[in-house]
Amino acid sequence: MPSAESPKLSRRRWITTTSGVIAAGLVKTQADAIQLIAQEAPTDPTKVPGRLVSEIGSRAPGEQPKRLIRAPALSSSSRTPLADLMGTITPADLHFERHHAGIPEIRFEDHELLVHGMVERPMVFRMSELMRYPQVSRIRFLECSGNGGGVYNRERMPTEVTVQALDGLLSTSEWTGVAVSTILREVGVRPGANWVLAEGGDSAVMSRSVPLEKVMKDSILAYGQNGERIRPEQGYPLRLFNPGYEGNTSVKWLRRIEVTDQPTHTRDETSKYTDPLGDGTVRQFSLVMDAKSVITFPSYPYVLPDKGWWEIRGLAWSGRGRITRVEVSTDGGRNWSDAALEGPILDKSTVRFRHLFEWNGRDTVILSRATDETGYVQPTVEQLWEARGIRTSYHQNHQRAWKIARTGEVTFGLGDLV
Amino acid sequence: MPSAESPKLSRRRWITTTSGVIAAGLVKTQADAIQLIAQEAPTDPTKVPGRLVSEIGSRAPGEQPKRLIRAPALSSSSRTPLADLMGTITPADLHFERHHAGIPEIRFEDHELLVHGMVERPMVFRMSELMRYPQVSRIRFLECSGNGGGVYNRERMPTEVTVQALDGLLSTSEWTGVAVSTILREVGVRPGANWVLAEGGDSAVMSRSVPLEKVMKDSILAYGQNGERIRPEQGYPLRLFNPGYEGNTSVKWLRRIEVTDQPTHTRDETSKYTDPLGDGTVRQFSLVMDAKSVITFPSYPYVLPDKGWWEIRGLAWSGRGRITRVEVSTDGGRNWSDAALEGPILDKSTVRFRHLFEWNGRDTVILSRATDETGYVQPTVEQLWEARGIRTSYHQNHQRAWKIARTGEVTFGLGDLV
Repeated sequence: MPSAESPKLSRRRWITTTSGVIAAGLVKTQADAIQLIAQEAPTDPTKVPGRLVSEIGSRAPGEQPKRLIRAPALSSSSRTPLADLMGTITPADLHFERHHAGIPEIRFEDHELLVHGMVERPMVFRMSELMRYPQVSRIRFLECSGNGGGVYNRERMPTEVTVQALDGLLSTSEWTGVAVSTILREVGVRPGANWVLAEGGDSAVMSRSVPLEKVMKDSILAYGQNGERIRPEQGYPLRLFNPGYEGNTSVKWLRRIEVTDQPTHTRDETSKYTDPLGDGTVRQFSLVMDAKSVITFPSYPYVLPDKGWWEIRGLAWSGRGRITRVEVSTDGGRNWSDAALEGPILDKSTVRFRHLFEWNGRDTVILSRATDETGYVQPTVEQLWEARGIRTSYHQNHQRAWKIARTGEVTFGLGDLV
Repeated sequence: MPSAESPKLSRRRWITTTSGVIAAGLVKTQADAIQLIAQEAPTDPTKVPGRLVSEIGSRAPGEQPKRLIRAPALSSSSRTPLADLMGTITPADLHFERHHAGIPEIRFEDHELLVHGMVERPMVFRMSELMRYPQVSRIRFLECSGNGGGVYNRERMPTEVTVQALDGLLSTSEWTGVAVSTILREVGVRPGANWVLAEGGDSAVMSRSVPLEKVMKDSILAYGQNGERIRPEQGYPLRLFNPGYEGNTSVKWLRRIEVTDQPTHTRDETSKYTDPLGDGTVRQFSLVMDAKSVITFPSYPYVLPDKGWWEIRGLAWSGRGRITRVEVSTDGGRNWSDAALEGPILDKSTVRFRHLFEWNGRDTVILSRATDETGYVQPTVEQLWEARGIRTSYHQNHQRAWKIARTGEVTFGLGDLV
């Protein structure tokens, strides 16, 4: 085993050791053996032969980011570790999940998509047929409309909450597939059509209505994610992907599209995904995700080890188009400075922002707010309460704050600002 | 086990079954159990409860792309399955590998970078210190300078070769880290400095010289890849990343940068990575990767099942900047048409091109050629032979061709064209 004690170990001996660990039944695969051996990294790695190539890579032993699951036995969602990530792309195995009845097992060869309703030629497509049509790829965010719901209620405002637990129902991927418009032109949409119904092949038969204008503009029948086939929990082998829309409309395991003149008012869009407003009315088909930003560093439970220059880092996005500006405040919202935005700034995708600030070692409250190309500015929680009342459960895109204590400890700070 | 015979199986029973498989010692983990069970997917997935969420996702049982290793026990490289991938991003676990003495085991906390030589203030940086500096992220390709070397020799031109075996030493990632210029400003470069030496912490102590002007312009001290910490085989915890330069200059496991007035002429840049030319001289420091394109579909061993419309798909890239044009020929290079390019077209990154063509069922030869923003056009193999002679081993970016036989079988076609 490569260690400080045996720096001149030959590669042959090292391989034998790996095999020995496997043969002894301590571990099952070479990857596991490497993991075991790697616990004891050499003092000088240049004196020890390195590990060989592999068909599939694995993370470093010390780097094991994970999705957050709140109640493992029952949970229907898992959250992306936003504070562990850099840039904008979410590794596919860390993309957030939200299922209504679990992940169905579907074989690529068996799956079919029926497109019917107000069309000239109803058609059934097998996956191999869909993949023959012109292919498009787009880097876009996907966010659950319930993301951030944990910090909207004045009575239950947490302080010790991670950005993963709070806003981890957000991920970004390069999605690949066929434009919905390509397939709808193939079947021929009839006059009078205004909506489509998208139906999933899971045991919830999750179904949502989406405006025809939207799906003709930029929706995708997605079979690829970050270069590879879409993962089972993301809808394998096929999902509808509606850029900028609330996540649940991007129906997974898509098996049916029906072209209609009106929304279908499915169970999933009447019992859920509607927003009770302050005046007693209910907002329905609130489909677009409004502009939002979150600071991912520093955030709970990070502790700043000393004062001085630190870079505030975060993500901003808007379902209405491009982010044009992110501002950061380091004095609780009194003064704001423009953060630097990392290009390319893509339509309906996350953008990374950053802002250097000198922490003076005193109590400090930091916030961010995003503006998109429509001029929409991420609101304060007070503005959202005013506009939508306090009983609404979705689309809580208000500004988030983090408090930095004199000790360097960072906690969620919205409670103090209201 | 969910199957056609037990469509009403409850979730509890399904979980018990999974546990049973594990307890019986047939498999070790829940992921393995799921894999086993998934071999028998249900006839109607809507009648069976789905699998629960997980901390780390895994691929569908039927989707297991792998890197290609030519000689498993000895190989120092593995290749990205380009024909299996879509879009531009390469999943981190499928990024190509090329090592000179294997993958060292390095702990994040132990790693240090020394920056010295012609500088005002020599400094040693720990990883936690580097991560505190302003962060940048860039989507960029990385290509080994030996990529494509298998189809340059007139005497040994293969026909049954996959795009993975031929050009799989190419991958694209979102790289994150500190700009080299930030760190060099911190240490203060002295007058007269013109180059830097980059040295790796593997047991080859792989070392390359890079022009100071280049690293000041856009090189990165990279610690992130596709959102997460860089993988061990990509240089964990730190690599130099030189956008557009031949892969070996992006030194992995980077432990030392020395600022110098001249190139150091290390073993790695004299014994290798030089290009003998036709006139008996040798080209050294041929650092930039020239513009290139490859058709990934259709390619060997795909067999077109019938004639009619097919979409030719591929990747194009240039180390000199942006791709401005990709042309496709479907008649062996006599006539060329502009392919559609999928945006955003980024600096020194791969771009996906596509071109619809109607295959008439006869013998057909398809090719692609890329043009970049400098006006450089991907050459024919004859042009490369003319310019560089036949003994050179790197930078073989000539146009590739695929032959489609009447049977629909696709084979590599360059041999017929010369």
